[in-house]
Amino acid sequence: MGTRSRDPRVLLDAASAGDRGALARLLSMIERGGDDARTVGRLSSAKGGTTYTVGLTGAPGAGKSTLTSATISLLRSRGIEVAVLAIDPSSPFSGGAILGDRVRMQEHATDPGVFIRSMATRGHLGGLSLATPEAIRLLDAVGREWVLVETVGVGQVEVEVAGKADTTVVVVNPGWGDSVQANKAGLMEIADVFVINKADREGVERTARDLQSALEIDEAMGAWLPPIVKTVASIGRGIEDVLVEVEKHRAHLLESGELAERRRDHLRLRVESALKQRVLATASEHLGLQSEIDGAFRDKVDPYTVADRVFAGVTRLGGGE
Amino acid sequence: MGTRSRDPRVLLDAASAGDRGALARLLSMIERGGDDARTVGRLSSAKGGTTYTVGLTGAPGAGKSTLTSATISLLRSRGIEVAVLAIDPSSPFSGGAILGDRVRMQEHATDPGVFIRSMATRGHLGGLSLATPEAIRLLDAVGREWVLVETVGVGQVEVEVAGKADTTVVVVNPGWGDSVQANKAGLMEIADVFVINKADREGVERTARDLQSALEIDEAMGAWLPPIVKTVASIGRGIEDVLVEVEKHRAHLLESGELAERRRDHLRLRVESALKQRVLATASEHLGLQSEIDGAFRDKVDPYTVADRVFAGVTRLGGGE
Repeated sequence: MGTRSRDPRVLLDAASAGDRGALARLLSMIERGGDDARTVGRLSSAKGGTTYTVGLTGAPGAGKSTLTSATISLLRSRGIEVAVLAIDPSSPFSGGAILGDRVRMQEHATDPGVFIRSMATRGHLGGLSLATPEAIRLLDAVGREWVLVETVGVGQVEVEVAGKADTTVVVVNPGWGDSVQANKAGLMEIADVFVINKADREGVERTARDLQSALEIDEAMGAWLPPIVKTVASIGRGIEDVLVEVEKHRAHLLESGELAERRRDHLRLRVESALKQRVLATASEHLGLQSEIDGAFRDKVDPYTVADRVFAGVTRLGGGE
Repeated sequence: MGTRSRDPRVLLDAASAGDRGALARLLSMIERGGDDARTVGRLSSAKGGTTYTVGLTGAPGAGKSTLTSATISLLRSRGIEVAVLAIDPSSPFSGGAILGDRVRMQEHATDPGVFIRSMATRGHLGGLSLATPEAIRLLDAVGREWVLVETVGVGQVEVEVAGKADTTVVVVNPGWGDSVQANKAGLMEIADVFVINKADREGVERTARDLQSALEIDEAMGAWLPPIVKTVASIGRGIEDVLVEVEKHRAHLLESGELAERRRDHLRLRVESALKQRVLATASEHLGLQSEIDGAFRDKVDPYTVADRVFAGVTRLGGGE
């Protein structure tokens, strides 16, 4: 029996004690945004800090869900508790793929050590970019050791979200190097580990060579050269190797101090986004932002001048206190 | 002989009189950002307002550049002055494609009625999303009647930038509906006109039917149902039809009042982005934003609390004046 409360504090205690319904309700609060989401964020930030996050991304059909499912099995065999956030930007096209993907997760549905949640957009795409890091902090606060963030495709939001994991795994297939594919540059940028899944197919060696040389010429690369792992996730082949490389990357991040740096950087982005929302809300409510914009549009005033004017208004708000 | 001045006012007058070197220098100022970019933005906003913007996007290899080039020829045959902004997010993979694309534009290189400019990122991807609308305003200010914004691929920034044109043309090929492709949802969202290029290839009717039904079931659609035009851009077939549909869409935007609405909406986004930069710059300079974030990271303070604290600091800045 789970709690029926709607108080974030009560729900967080219940979720920490293993109440999955409470955890689900907290995640819904985060997805909806607003005051409840802020409260959950405040409570979560004070706890946790031990969760490791792995993003899995790649084109639809690359086998991400099969790989995720096999990774869950391996982690569970070591007694590790796992949560999966499946990032599903809503789309008239992707409905089929989402259902297909989720079916592959069914084998873990009855395991209390596995928590799977689809994160969908509510209204606007940007919502997922804000809600996902908050969801990760919450899963951290309730004691999940690993959070896997799996995307359906390689769209804008999905790459952004997966790229903010501690380790980002990019899943490709043999032949990837040949076909011109969208968002390849975006994927090269965020990959910490490359997995060539369906590696029993033709062209795997060539794809590995192509990836290797692309990685080596990329001047933006730092000290970490993303390893390339070959898997056949459908029969579990290569999954241990993936986890070995993820753990190596984790050790690299820890030793180099980059893990703390990345997480501080993500906190900075979240602060900036919260600050922007605060400023815009105040400017709309107290400074007539909308009529400023309407006036600027009518009178052909440039955006910088409007921003300066509104900013001056904000700096005077606290003057009378 | 063009002017050698570096004063934005002098350059803008020269560019308006047809000095291409002056126009190029103003565009570089916009790309670099900073005070010069703000000045160019201020000067540009006060002028113009008659330019029509058409975005062309689609996967690499779909034939966007050939279509753009054919569209330029058609517009020029009607005596219309055209500018092209080619959006090239820098990437180790796309170098070849960019060079290949630009070659197709060479036929217009000596026509003074055509101005072609590659917009590349300087440092960070977000730069293009900010610089491109400013570049459009500048081309508007110097009297270009049409601005075509062509992307290399369908990455995050490219779709965002192309989607902010007055009319967005999405270029696909026969068979598009069959293959699972990245960012399809993003393209469906922004398309005002669909072009099936290479329509002499097999599968064109099926692709048209698939697109048609996808468009019809999309509940997000408003009064405008994107038309589907078939072209073979390499031999100029169908280009007139594309322009007819673009003009129909333009008329629809004007009659429905949506054109003004879209442009006001884009101004709002630019104001918000300028305001955010202003707040962050001030918070960094006067309120120790970075040490606030460092402290929050150390003490596990949530981003909302940090944002509230910094915001309170901003509102008190003008109090002593």
